[in-house]
Amino acid sequence: MRIDGRGPGDLRPITFRLDVNPYAEGSVEVSFGKTTLLITASVDRDRPKWLAEGAGGWITAEYGMLPRATHTRSGREASIGKQSGRTQEIQRLIGRALRAAVNLREIEGLMIRVDCDVLVADGGTRTAAISGGWLALRQALERAAVEGLLPTPVTVRQIAAVSLGMVQGEPLVDLCYEEDSTADFDLNLVFNDQAHVIEIQGTAERTSLPNEELLRLLTLGESAARHVMALQQAALATRG
Amino acid sequence: MRIDGRGPGDLRPITFRLDVNPYAEGSVEVSFGKTTLLITASVDRDRPKWLAEGAGGWITAEYGMLPRATHTRSGREASIGKQSGRTQEIQRLIGRALRAAVNLREIEGLMIRVDCDVLVADGGTRTAAISGGWLALRQALERAAVEGLLPTPVTVRQIAAVSLGMVQGEPLVDLCYEEDSTADFDLNLVFNDQAHVIEIQGTAERTSLPNEELLRLLTLGESAARHVMALQQAALATRG
Amino acid sequence: MRIDGRGPGDLRPITFRLDVNPYAEGSVEVSFGKTTLLITASVDRDRPKWLAEGAGGWITAEYGMLPRATHTRSGREASIGKQSGRTQEIQRLIGRALRAAVNLREIEGLMIRVDCDVLVADGGTRTAAISGGWLALRQALERAAVEGLLPTPVTVRQIAAVSLGMVQGEPLVDLCYEEDSTADFDLNLVFNDQAHVIEIQGTAERTSLPNEELLRLLTLGESAARHVMALQQAALATRG
Amino acid sequence: MRIDGRGPGDLRPITFRLDVNPYAEGSVEVSFGKTTLLITASVDRDRPKWLAEGAGGWITAEYGMLPRATHTRSGREASIGKQSGRTQEIQRLIGRALRAAVNLREIEGLMIRVDCDVLVADGGTRTAAISGGWLALRQALERAAVEGLLPTPVTVRQIAAVSLGMVQGEPLVDLCYEEDSTADFDLNLVFNDQAHVIEIQGTAERTSLPNEELLRLLTLGESAARHVMALQQAALATRG
Amino acid sequence: MRIDGRGPGDLRPITFRLDVNPYAEGSVEVSFGKTTLLITASVDRDRPKWLAEGAGGWITAEYGMLPRATHTRSGREASIGKQSGRTQEIQRLIGRALRAAVNLREIEGLMIRVDCDVLVADGGTRTAAISGGWLALRQALERAAVEGLLPTPVTVRQIAAVSLGMVQGEPLVDLCYEEDSTADFDLNLVFNDQAHVIEIQGTAERTSLPNEELLRLLTLGESAARHVMALQQAALATRG
Amino acid sequence: MRIDGRGPGDLRPITFRLDVNPYAEGSVEVSFGKTTLLITASVDRDRPKWLAEGAGGWITAEYGMLPRATHTRSGREASIGKQSGRTQEIQRLIGRALRAAVNLREIEGLMIRVDCDVLVADGGTRTAAISGGWLALRQALERAAVEGLLPTPVTVRQIAAVSLGMVQGEPLVDLCYEEDSTADFDLNLVFNDQAHVIEIQGTAERTSLPNEELLRLLTLGESAARHVMALQQAALATRG
Repeated sequence: MRIDGRGPGDLRPITFRLDVNPYAEGSVEVSFGKTTLLITASVDRDRPKWLAEGAGGWITAEYGMLPRATHTRSGREASIGKQSGRTQEIQRLIGRALRAAVNLREIEGLMIRVDCDVLVADGGTRTAAISGGWLALRQALERAAVEGLLPTPVTVRQIAAVSLGMVQGEPLVDLCYEEDSTADFDLNLVFNDQAHVIEIQGTAERTSLPNEELLRLLTLGESAARHVMALQQAALATRG
Repeated sequence: MRIDGRGPGDLRPITFRLDVNPYAEGSVEVSFGKTTLLITASVDRDRPKWLAEGAGGWITAEYGMLPRATHTRSGREASIGKQSGRTQEIQRLIGRALRAAVNLREIEGLMIRVDCDVLVADGGTRTAAISGGWLALRQALERAAVEGLLPTPVTVRQIAAVSLGMVQGEPLVDLCYEEDSTADFDLNLVFNDQAHVIEIQGTAERTSLPNEELLRLLTLGESAARHVMALQQAALATRG
Repeated sequence: MRIDGRGPGDLRPITFRLDVNPYAEGSVEVSFGKTTLLITASVDRDRPKWLAEGAGGWITAEYGMLPRATHTRSGREASIGKQSGRTQEIQRLIGRALRAAVNLREIEGLMIRVDCDVLVADGGTRTAAISGGWLALRQALERAAVEGLLPTPVTVRQIAAVSLGMVQGEPLVDLCYEEDSTADFDLNLVFNDQAHVIEIQGTAERTSLPNEELLRLLTLGESAARHVMALQQAALATRG
Repeated sequence: MRIDGRGPGDLRPITFRLDVNPYAEGSVEVSFGKTTLLITASVDRDRPKWLAEGAGGWITAEYGMLPRATHTRSGREASIGKQSGRTQEIQRLIGRALRAAVNLREIEGLMIRVDCDVLVADGGTRTAAISGGWLALRQALERAAVEGLLPTPVTVRQIAAVSLGMVQGEPLVDLCYEEDSTADFDLNLVFNDQAHVIEIQGTAERTSLPNEELLRLLTLGESAARHVMALQQAALATRG
Repeated sequence: MRIDGRGPGDLRPITFRLDVNPYAEGSVEVSFGKTTLLITASVDRDRPKWLAEGAGGWITAEYGMLPRATHTRSGREASIGKQSGRTQEIQRLIGRALRAAVNLREIEGLMIRVDCDVLVADGGTRTAAISGGWLALRQALERAAVEGLLPTPVTVRQIAAVSLGMVQGEPLVDLCYEEDSTADFDLNLVFNDQAHVIEIQGTAERTSLPNEELLRLLTLGESAARHVMALQQAALATRG
Repeated sequence: MRIDGRGPGDLRPITFRLDVNPYAEGSVEVSFGKTTLLITASVDRDRPKWLAEGAGGWITAEYGMLPRATHTRSGREASIGKQSGRTQEIQRLIGRALRAAVNLREIEGLMIRVDCDVLVADGGTRTAAISGGWLALRQALERAAVEGLLPTPVTVRQIAAVSLGMVQGEPLVDLCYEEDSTADFDLNLVFNDQAHVIEIQGTAERTSLPNEELLRLLTLGESAARHVMALQQAALATRG
């Protein structure tokens, strides 16, 4: 039994609130338990310099935490004057994952920036950012299509992410901060709609992982990701 | 009649939601119309270096905007690597205003950081930050007292802020972005519980201001500030 | 009686020395008592990027203090690697004030940078910068007209600034550092040639200000600003 | 058959040259084919601030590329003024991997910095850094023991890293740049001496990866890592 | 005959105005022709971290140019966010030269910062900074002795600097900007009171320099430096 | 007799290994005793902005040290976020020296960046960088000619640099770190193929230098530079 009463494969209560920002082309407030992020997707026509005309568009992500999103206050990165290595690592992961949802050739000339800001952090912020970011991205592309910015409809492949960990020899899904801080092995997985892995990042915090354990985590993650995908679809359906 | 149907002295619908952050000693989500900020007050014992032991404590504020808080996306300051002049000017104003609410000698050894992050901007973010920041600060000091961090109870003087402007020769209170962008004169006022001014910042955007006009704005501002103070008290009362 | 023998409404000895820099289009060394700044106005044709062709020109200001302009040495901002919040706040104020002197539509394609460097600081540096900066700006626009950079003569509206404060319940004008450090309320005012306020910035350092006190300060400031304007005109007249 | 004639599971020619730096406590020049790094491990006694006395020591890594380590010159990070996100992501990975080799409690008060500088880059720089970095770390700890900086001998668990990829549906080990740039899926693996994974980082560059493919890569990686470990041991043996 | 009518070995009119800053322990305004700098020497007791107690004191210099010290405006380094390579090179030279004037063992615990700010630049700013900086340093040490900060009187060895150049095959002393910009070879020399070189920095801008030409420049420089030293002494004598 | 048995005018063993980088247009590993640098010359067509079309090309140099190139580890400049004053001073010297080898008018439109990275530092890194950099530059220009980037063959004038010092009253050439740290006077000289000085930089570390001593050093340096030039030619000849 986990500290909050969940079973090993249970996700925390998840909510996706769409259209929470009055200006952004796509926006969502996502919660996994106490972990809460505000995510916006902004569409511009300022193609990155390295991308030739006719070579498609680009999707990038930025990640930030409000200083008191955590138990103790962290310094504000804007005030410190640079983003931490952790922040950069996370936003690179989010960007790569979201780009895997779209054929970039189909969004010619567009630059989509997905901003993921953590209001409250209780573990799993990067995977929540990806799962919520996909919804914001999808909305933004719909809006872009409606506004005639896209020549043809764009197929947005569904993606979802989950965090996992080995805690006291037990594979667990969607760790809260307290579980995460005692995990032996951390694993973040991003899946696509074929239930195939598109990103895997695992770290032995205390003990290494035999292959069979890694497989158990992958299986658990796949099942959890399917559940997140169903909730993403439900959020879209409710919106109508 | 104003663009949203208000009278000249009417404030937009205002809400103060307390305790929105599970970790911070004080927190509030404040809205003036669409303008929404998440504010936390964090108490630490790391006195600034320039403040001698026994010389009291300090209160400071930091201000930030999520990149898509505005109609078009702005660059993220953490990524750009510095806070803009506007950001610094605003957070200095918030900090000065909040320090005026407390006798700093009474909070020996404490460092209170008030983080004001704009989720949605539609004019008046700095005055909303001050009015909401006061609530977060007050809660944080209550919590500090409960936790024995303060030798004696601290008196927190009430403060509230309002924005005003001359628009087409008419003094208006609590301008939304659209009004603000056409104002001839902008004025931000911070009042204390004696209805005295503790901060005044006015700028002729288009036309200068005779003294009698300035007085009309001050009178209008005082009345609006009293209204904000009543709402601050109501928010505290509701909490019990 | 004030510490240097002045009456409450008396300015310190003021000097404006024009043409102190052999290269700049406009230059002035301004002194208010010991406070001394070297100000230059530089005219270029590099319009800011956000200003469309045909939409006029721009005026901006930069402010700096030599490290030992003050009683104890401050770190050099160029060496620290950034301008302080105070510096940015001041240079933003100077820039706004000077832009109010000119119809920016009339200086099509010009970029005027006014550099205000404090050689000695003894209170009132920002208001001295504005009053002196106006002279440098005016000269620079004259020079630009002579050199054919301006299609038509530009009207430069006169502006002047003064600092004030409430010291021990008494409204005083043009505070020196020693007075400023004990003031209950600080007020900086910028007036135009109609004696209307174009910028007002006041802060309760110790005590708040009832409206009637604020009015007394405004009246005192207006009279002092008229005196500064007369000295600005005298400096221009002397030059011939 | 691969572009350089290797079989799918073949590593490129690997060399570890120990003691290439006359000053560092540990040093190695490592080559995987053309990819070449100079690695040093430096031992100091400046414990990080967040690490309490008696709580052990710390190991960290820094990564850099000479500007012309790559086909076209990249800007020098020292001149640009910050490390890229890629650099930070890589050095965080190296540091985590190397810390997994040591019980940090056993190196009380020591700070070991492992510098990994890429002289020539042809794919696989981060895994070469880990495999070579382990040798430099091991030497540095031996030296520290000899110099009496360590109370008791430290056990250094062997670790090694390999890069893999799916290229045209084929799992390949130790990709050179040309292979890497056409890979469908990239995978970096770090193993310990039990042949257990301690770090896994995989990214779908073009196509996602079913679990069974991931397993094939893991198996291939394990075998390659064993081979790297044998070469590490041989390098140590040669040294005597 | 030179462009301003001087002979090859003639210095421009030189002035040293002492005590121009009311706060600094030492200050001087130095002019070589149009070139003008304001120099202050500030005495503090914050010994650099790398200097052990009992190991003496330190002298350092900082150099800056007001943005419009030159014919066309340069960006302000504080605003750009870093000092240029040229600035750093110059301030390192000034610091080294001034340290050669004092036995650092004799100024135990003192940190002396010499700030050299160029108000107007017309060639020779670094050598004027050294020649003027010596006067500011000397005054500051006198003041420190008077205030009891120095156990025993400090001997300050006189130093002076001159700029030279080969212009159209002719060795010239104290080049103005126009001469400097056409020089074939630039040479900056710092001499001590024995007329020995303590710093030499020469650069072939257009043509290289045979040894005998270098000697001619050295001889010319020595004579000019003696003249500067006489003027330094005269400035001290006038002050009484 | 010197600490490593050399006579006063003897250089340490010098090696120039050409073509050590598989990508760069020119590359060399240069050693003077233990001092070792990896140098590359990269040719691009991105003319600096300030250089008008038709006005030629440009050559610039960047210098860096691996953190553990020295006895004790130095902070990594990329991580610190800026290049030190020493680094900038050195890379400016290298760039100036190399530009003196070429008529920049003859390399129209080319930008050549010479990167000098110190692998091991034992004194004389800047002069080794210049002597080795000349070889890399020469190769890069040959390659550019072969690839048709140059309309006409470019004459590359030979240059070489040596470090010297007065140690205990004795003029010595090519000081190692231990000698350098006890030198009374340091001198770096760059010569061209006429044995004329093109750069001279000397500093009294402990004692000043009479002109006749300076001459002795110049004579010694000229002879040493001729020897370095012969080795540069030998390296080119070996390459065929």
